[in-house]
Amino acid sequence: MLLFPVAEFKERLRKTKKSMAESNIDVLLVTDPANMNYLIGYNAWSFYVHQIMIVSLEKDEPIWIGRGMDAAACEHTSWISKDNILAYSDNYVQSTERHPMDFVADILKEHHLDKKTIAAEYDAYYFTAQNYIKLTSGLPNATFVDGTSLVNWVRIIKSDGEIELIKKAGQLVTNAMHKGIEMIDAGVRECDVVAEIYHTQISGTKEFGGDYTAIVPLLPAGEESNACHMTWTDDRYKDGEPVILELAGCHNRYHSPLARTVQIGKPTSDMEKVADAAIEGIQAALDVVKPGATCEEVKKAWRESIKKRGFEKESRIGYSTGLNYPPDWGEHTASIRPGDKTVLQPNMVFHMIPGLWLDNFGFELSETFRVTETGYELIADVEHKLFLK
Amino acid sequence: MLLFPVAEFKERLRKTKKSMAESNIDVLLVTDPANMNYLIGYNAWSFYVHQIMIVSLEKDEPIWIGRGMDAAACEHTSWISKDNILAYSDNYVQSTERHPMDFVADILKEHHLDKKTIAAEYDAYYFTAQNYIKLTSGLPNATFVDGTSLVNWVRIIKSDGEIELIKKAGQLVTNAMHKGIEMIDAGVRECDVVAEIYHTQISGTKEFGGDYTAIVPLLPAGEESNACHMTWTDDRYKDGEPVILELAGCHNRYHSPLARTVQIGKPTSDMEKVADAAIEGIQAALDVVKPGATCEEVKKAWRESIKKRGFEKESRIGYSTGLNYPPDWGEHTASIRPGDKTVLQPNMVFHMIPGLWLDNFGFELSETFRVTETGYELIADVEHKLFLK
Repeated sequence: MLLFPVAEFKERLRKTKKSMAESNIDVLLVTDPANMNYLIGYNAWSFYVHQIMIVSLEKDEPIWIGRGMDAAACEHTSWISKDNILAYSDNYVQSTERHPMDFVADILKEHHLDKKTIAAEYDAYYFTAQNYIKLTSGLPNATFVDGTSLVNWVRIIKSDGEIELIKKAGQLVTNAMHKGIEMIDAGVRECDVVAEIYHTQISGTKEFGGDYTAIVPLLPAGEESNACHMTWTDDRYKDGEPVILELAGCHNRYHSPLARTVQIGKPTSDMEKVADAAIEGIQAALDVVKPGATCEEVKKAWRESIKKRGFEKESRIGYSTGLNYPPDWGEHTASIRPGDKTVLQPNMVFHMIPGLWLDNFGFELSETFRVTETGYELIADVEHKLFLK
Repeated sequence: MLLFPVAEFKERLRKTKKSMAESNIDVLLVTDPANMNYLIGYNAWSFYVHQIMIVSLEKDEPIWIGRGMDAAACEHTSWISKDNILAYSDNYVQSTERHPMDFVADILKEHHLDKKTIAAEYDAYYFTAQNYIKLTSGLPNATFVDGTSLVNWVRIIKSDGEIELIKKAGQLVTNAMHKGIEMIDAGVRECDVVAEIYHTQISGTKEFGGDYTAIVPLLPAGEESNACHMTWTDDRYKDGEPVILELAGCHNRYHSPLARTVQIGKPTSDMEKVADAAIEGIQAALDVVKPGATCEEVKKAWRESIKKRGFEKESRIGYSTGLNYPPDWGEHTASIRPGDKTVLQPNMVFHMIPGLWLDNFGFELSETFRVTETGYELIADVEHKLFLK
């Protein structure tokens, strides 16, 4: 079931250990499901219970620790040996009497790792405060440090194999976006449009299927188009409403996000102005993308472009993306925003989403792009315009 | 946009404050998106960035704090006044220089709540270790205590309005399950079945639409049916494979989960034995459900029933469910397992999922039920059997 040669996983692990060593970290506790997948291939919807992976400089293979009933999934999907798949019993699950991190602390003691410098992903979604409290109190002789995003930074440059998966995701989002734009019209229910989008995302193409995306389709409409993270209802679209579609394609957990805006009926002149500015701005930003440019330079190109048209936008306009799990397809590393001096390198992949929201409506047009040897290439293939219905 | 009268939200808040007072908690920091929704109505896919809600015994309304671009969604979906919707600027998002909880700590100081006993949901998915570290270091004069599941326990008894939404979700999962069972067959791709399931879940009925479910459809097949949380691929089903379907319907964030098993081709005699035992066992467990019975008594009825057929299962066989967000539709309160002495009361809703997994295959048959005045009622409507194709 492995999507990459074991040698590629081991190379990822080597880079992770190198980064650990540079930060004087002996043991890294990995909670982020994307980081687990990246290092050992593990893939299941099991992150709703506590699970953790121990990466130790002293050991060749990571140790995966999870719920008993999920050990089989780890055997099916990962390359690590069965001996390194450890499971806690079911009475640890969502219990007030015992906590899975007590079990993890015992494992670390058994492996004589309890006096080491241990990093955990302090700000990863599923590394809760309680995890931290249980581990630090259970391992009083360890030195705990923050390892948030250490593996994420290793992930930022994709292998050619990863790029292939992202491009397949790009085909899926291209199809799903076209389907959504085609469906949206006055009188159509939002849920019926979203149902067709899902169908297109998941059934995929004749050659390959689609996976669930880390964020659900977001389609704020009308006055709610100023609230970019609201999800759909069963209301019917009305004439005159703008509808923003922010979707992704996903193939084997690799994402290609994309946003477009549809105007039902005649656009206001404000909407036309915003759309023109955003379309011009994203091209200006893309035009500076090449190896050696920095994230903040890309943001600056956008800012200067929209400023000429009288607009300002403070929020970040993009982030690294790729392999991920709910609730986010962003990688939590480089952001396209002021102050981010990350230098672009070939095979980095970003979702650039420079939306413009006014008081009572918004316009979004985004692209996922790969940094090439000389510039960029777009992953999806959908026209740059305000779609009129 | 409110789904319930403001008076119902205020009653929920009153119960929450009562529970806080009983635990000597002055201030509760709510992170769980379901708890936010429950208390103020807030609903958006914004939990991938840090957000928190302050419930103080001293204040009538909670204070919601989130990302700038999500404040509009809080205005659209909640009943609290605009003054109590506070937003941090975008340079706090996934930044290594500043953290949203620093902003939250400042707000607590401004409101003179920094010397109080403050509870946070230590083991909620999105309350990270870093949140805890930032808050405790930023508020050295506060006393921090664990408030995990305090609001969840208030949620455990549903209002009639909530039950109505769960029943709509039950119609959706009934339809989606029938669609999935109909589609599964040798030669059909897993992703094509899942695409149809999604379409059915989301497009809903003529009268109402469907929402995204907190867990994606889980359909482990063949030898992987022993790994209950693996997700679909684009492989084709093969003759002889068992396929487990664990799905939910969701309407306005309220869930009704359901599991069934399909056998493609002739079942093995082992499968028939397991199926018979599980079908008999779930009925035995349901038969003891009524107000006054305890969770562990329900589990005991299942255990004794399957024991007669020579089976054992250690893991819990159910949990409270209802309003939820990814990654779990379980409420993290009562579990149907040994030692859980929660007394069943009318309008509690449980997903009872007593799967049986052998070494290389599994069988699941579950029901979501409401505790009535005299017993139980099933929320969905799908036959109890091993479905043969």
